Amino acid sequence: MSMNNTLAEIADLVRETNPLVHCITNYVTVNDCANVLLAVGASPVMADDRAEVAEITSIAQALLLNIGTLNRRTIASMKRATKTANTNGIPVILDPVGAGASKLRTRTAQSLVRIARPALIRGNASEIAALHAGSGNTRGVDAAEADQGDDAFSRTLATAKALAVESGAVVAVTGSTDIITDGKRVLTIRNGHPILSRITGSGCMLSCLCAAFCAADPKRILEASTAAVAAMGLCGEHAAADTALAGTATFRTALIDRLSRITGSELAQGVLCEESA
Amino acid sequence: MSMNNTLAEIADLVRETNPLVHCITNYVTVNDCANVLLAVGASPVMADDRAEVAEITSIAQALLLNIGTLNRRTIASMKRATKTANTNGIPVILDPVGAGASKLRTRTAQSLVRIARPALIRGNASEIAALHAGSGNTRGVDAAEADQGDDAFSRTLATAKALAVESGAVVAVTGSTDIITDGKRVLTIRNGHPILSRITGSGCMLSCLCAAFCAADPKRILEASTAAVAAMGLCGEHAAADTALAGTATFRTALIDRLSRITGSELAQGVLCEESA
Amino acid sequence: MSMNNTLAEIADLVRETNPLVHCITNYVTVNDCANVLLAVGASPVMADDRAEVAEITSIAQALLLNIGTLNRRTIASMKRATKTANTNGIPVILDPVGAGASKLRTRTAQSLVRIARPALIRGNASEIAALHAGSGNTRGVDAAEADQGDDAFSRTLATAKALAVESGAVVAVTGSTDIITDGKRVLTIRNGHPILSRITGSGCMLSCLCAAFCAADPKRILEASTAAVAAMGLCGEHAAADTALAGTATFRTALIDRLSRITGSELAQGVLCEESA
Repeated sequence: MSMNNTLAEIADLVRETNPLVHCITNYVTVNDCANVLLAVGASPVMADDRAEVAEITSIAQALLLNIGTLNRRTIASMKRATKTANTNGIPVILDPVGAGASKLRTRTAQSLVRIARPALIRGNASEIAALHAGSGNTRGVDAAEADQGDDAFSRTLATAKALAVESGAVVAVTGSTDIITDGKRVLTIRNGHPILSRITGSGCMLSCLCAAFCAADPKRILEASTAAVAAMGLCGEHAAADTALAGTATFRTALIDRLSRITGSELAQGVLCEESA
Repeated sequence: MSMNNTLAEIADLVRETNPLVHCITNYVTVNDCANVLLAVGASPVMADDRAEVAEITSIAQALLLNIGTLNRRTIASMKRATKTANTNGIPVILDPVGAGASKLRTRTAQSLVRIARPALIRGNASEIAALHAGSGNTRGVDAAEADQGDDAFSRTLATAKALAVESGAVVAVTGSTDIITDGKRVLTIRNGHPILSRITGSGCMLSCLCAAFCAADPKRILEASTAAVAAMGLCGEHAAADTALAGTATFRTALIDRLSRITGSELAQGVLCEESA
Repeated sequence: MSMNNTLAEIADLVRETNPLVHCITNYVTVNDCANVLLAVGASPVMADDRAEVAEITSIAQALLLNIGTLNRRTIASMKRATKTANTNGIPVILDPVGAGASKLRTRTAQSLVRIARPALIRGNASEIAALHAGSGNTRGVDAAEADQGDDAFSRTLATAKALAVESGAVVAVTGSTDIITDGKRVLTIRNGHPILSRITGSGCMLSCLCAAFCAADPKRILEASTAAVAAMGLCGEHAAADTALAGTATFRTALIDRLSRITGSELAQGVLCEESA
């Protein structure tokens, strides 16, 4: 089966199996996260109190950790939830939002990589660099300029592969070209549109989609993550074609609309995916 | 006056009296909650710190408690706020989000039923069953499959009536057919559309509407709750007719739009309400 | 250069310089806040943990404090962040949401005025009165009726000027006519549309815009705040003209769309700005 068909199959599997994704995430984009999970056929459950996270994780098919507005209380909850996820063998997806922007974020993200044994780490180039090196170039929660452009691509690829090897996780770095790697295989996605960076939460939403797709097909984390990245990129592309001139809020609505309608076969037809060594 | 006219009257009363609703609610859907309160003519105030909730409740006409992302801090605030609400005689509306999914949720919801003396409890069938029995079949925050379908209707009805009797609250269970009962009288609403379950927060928004309607007519909790359930269902129906093919985000926008425009007379014309024994 | 051209220049400067705004804000409207910052060309970073706020503020060009859902934890974070902001000489923008509605809010807002040395305080008439007098007439988070209407205008103006003088901050009071004053100069903006008060967060979003504009031109706080107030009013006006009949959610989308497209020259053409003594 071709890679495009595999991605299509996984996208359809999400709608067929309706996986429950436990999200411990930030309060900025949490509503969008819940809505995109529902859009693609998954179910969200947000719960962050230490007294219940283990129980909630135990009924879920994936655990999503996003440190966008981390605090002492929710960091403790994240750590506790990962134990249940690891015990139950469900995938943990880590979004190290803003790693590199503060010691708290960098350390928490690094510590979650060790403790949570994530199946997938998804971030922008700055965040991935911060996780790998322990000191990044993060500017707030957006990718720093030095991490953008063609020059930086090979550097980012090397970092992603190195982080994948040292963490044992698949690493997805999103940018104008998205990279998904397990340290050996490298998949790239060239879908997407620049307007995605003009709405908040496109990264957070994508991480949630990755969690849903990995939940549906936990034995193929590399392919499932790639399918999620492709779905976001393709829907972004289509939504922008329909609405970019109207403005960023209309684009956001159109993006979630597209995610709520996308099928495996549309994904197979529109995805620009390549595999390199 | 016919029931439909009563519902219309209450809907208009919300716009005339502009009640202030104090919400202690989750961070997932709180923005939608605030927007639907404004849409139907009420005013929202969100405040969850223990040091101010009593004061905030004291200027409000209803108190809405939603345990969607409960934690130790906000549970304490909810309990404190209910004292003021009870002292001042304003209705407390309880949305036991996810009751049955964790012991913390089930116990907190049950304890709030006792302490808060809610005028209304609104949930899905799984949550209502969890509240009644102390052990539910909740799958995250969505109704479990066993609680859906025609088979389950009579079981849900019996549970709702029993919970109403033992709690002294009106109980509203929403699903394909909505049930609103005070333990004796039973009203059903057959408006609505399946796409409502594909956006996050349709339950939370409805509970807020119930709070606004109960605030406007606190002596008729059964009818006020029914009017809110009917308004949500009818607006969902109309929004779906306009936009369902576009996708879930456009539907969400259309739903709030419809709520911002609905009048009592439109409600009276469109509602599918029946009273049974 | 005319005032209108100055406002245009500042609006364009935001897109050119892409300032990073650190927001410690409420969870009700935080998503809208992030989206409008991105819309006008700024970058948001939301972070509220005491362990990281100083570091986050140190990479930002403005600090926005909004007490909409304040609690003990975030109040401490706000205070800590202001030290860094003051040391680094970046503007602090204070939105005293609901000041007057509870002692906690009034005291926290007053204490932040003293500690944070804000460059700008932006609120509605009730909140500004509460900050000035220590006891307001606030009804939840909306302006109380006694603070609305033409009668109240001169009273509000006097209060705003007095607060500006005693605090050393520019004070922006928004209502049907917006007032921006440093205690001596007074600018008014007569753009806007009543439907802005029917969506949640129009005040919070405006405060964020003020922060972005002040970040881009920190030496002209009075003009930068006026430009932000004008941009919000003008975009609200245009969005309402396009969509008001559709409903409040469509209006909200159109508002953010307009903000994402507005240029300095459009602002200069549409703004209704006057300067009085």
